[in-house]
Amino acid sequence: MSLTQYYVAATLDGFIADRDHSLQWLFTARSDDGGPPGYRAFISAVGAIAMGANTYEWIVAHASPGTDPADAPWPYEQPCWVFTHRELPLPRSSAPIVFASGDVAMAHTEMVAATAGRNIWVMGGGDLAGQFADAGVLDELLVAIAPTTLGGGAALLPRPLDLTLHDVSRNGDFACLRYAVGRGWMSRNE
Amino acid sequence: MSLTQYYVAATLDGFIADRDHSLQWLFTARSDDGGPPGYRAFISAVGAIAMGANTYEWIVAHASPGTDPADAPWPYEQPCWVFTHRELPLPRSSAPIVFASGDVAMAHTEMVAATAGRNIWVMGGGDLAGQFADAGVLDELLVAIAPTTLGGGAALLPRPLDLTLHDVSRNGDFACLRYAVGRGWMSRNE
Repeated sequence: MSLTQYYVAATLDGFIADRDHSLQWLFTARSDDGGPPGYRAFISAVGAIAMGANTYEWIVAHASPGTDPADAPWPYEQPCWVFTHRELPLPRSSAPIVFASGDVAMAHTEMVAATAGRNIWVMGGGDLAGQFADAGVLDELLVAIAPTTLGGGAALLPRPLDLTLHDVSRNGDFACLRYAVGRGWMSRNE
Repeated sequence: MSLTQYYVAATLDGFIADRDHSLQWLFTARSDDGGPPGYRAFISAVGAIAMGANTYEWIVAHASPGTDPADAPWPYEQPCWVFTHRELPLPRSSAPIVFASGDVAMAHTEMVAATAGRNIWVMGGGDLAGQFADAGVLDELLVAIAPTTLGGGAALLPRPLDLTLHDVSRNGDFACLRYAVGRGWMSRNE
């Protein structure tokens, strides 16, 4: 059964980027991609990715700095749905990139069909994850908390949500928390 | 050696109270005061408490609801420094309550002298903890993360701070994280 997961790094005070959209605070902290519950195991189970326009533009700009977007390599093999109301450049990608502007619920149905039972990664930003939660299709939050407070920036998840804590672990400098969305509700894969 | 610790419960998105100053989200989550790293072991090592005016008023109002503040029992045995610029009622307390309005660094020196080597609990709010950090006298953050997002409210710690993760554990519904203030700096009791 496909899970829809918001997997993200955040500061202890709940921001996923600073006020200048920078992730510098993130890259100064150490983690082991191969260690539990690291990125490698997570991404191997992902069949489709959802992201907002800002996240998309950040990836295009940072995948190969200084390169024209049309020549920049795209780092993901899974089909991506990019939620945007504006026109965006299309990078060099072997995987399909779909620009979506409507309701996330409809796109989510398409994504589930595309994943063949693998998971859907809601990469961000926070409001897009909130839209998936509003639509009742967000199953889990996997948050890697960096050892930093910023005091302001882009919000992790600008919604009131009850969660159920399923796992607490550590990877390097990060506290790694896994939640099911909803209170007392068991996630579908446990 | 006395440690100055900001020990607080927060939501996953970094709030310590909701927009209406309510802690309702906190009281619906379960924890074991006696379990590690619970409240009982923590408070037994505390020799003095610092809090802001809002935190103080919340305790006075909730310690014995409906009771006149002058008759409300005060729940702490340790001397308390209340940082305020306004006049506040004084509850029935066997422990000294000191109203302070100046620089936190000066009050902190008094508190250290009063603790006889025990720890100082900065109870909140977030800005008071930030003032202790600004003054360079905040040693640790001990944050119990409740399984909730609020999307807004009173900020955990409205400052940019680098931290060092020292401990990750779980108590009931809470993820319990302990940090030293500063990056790569070992806390004094390790």
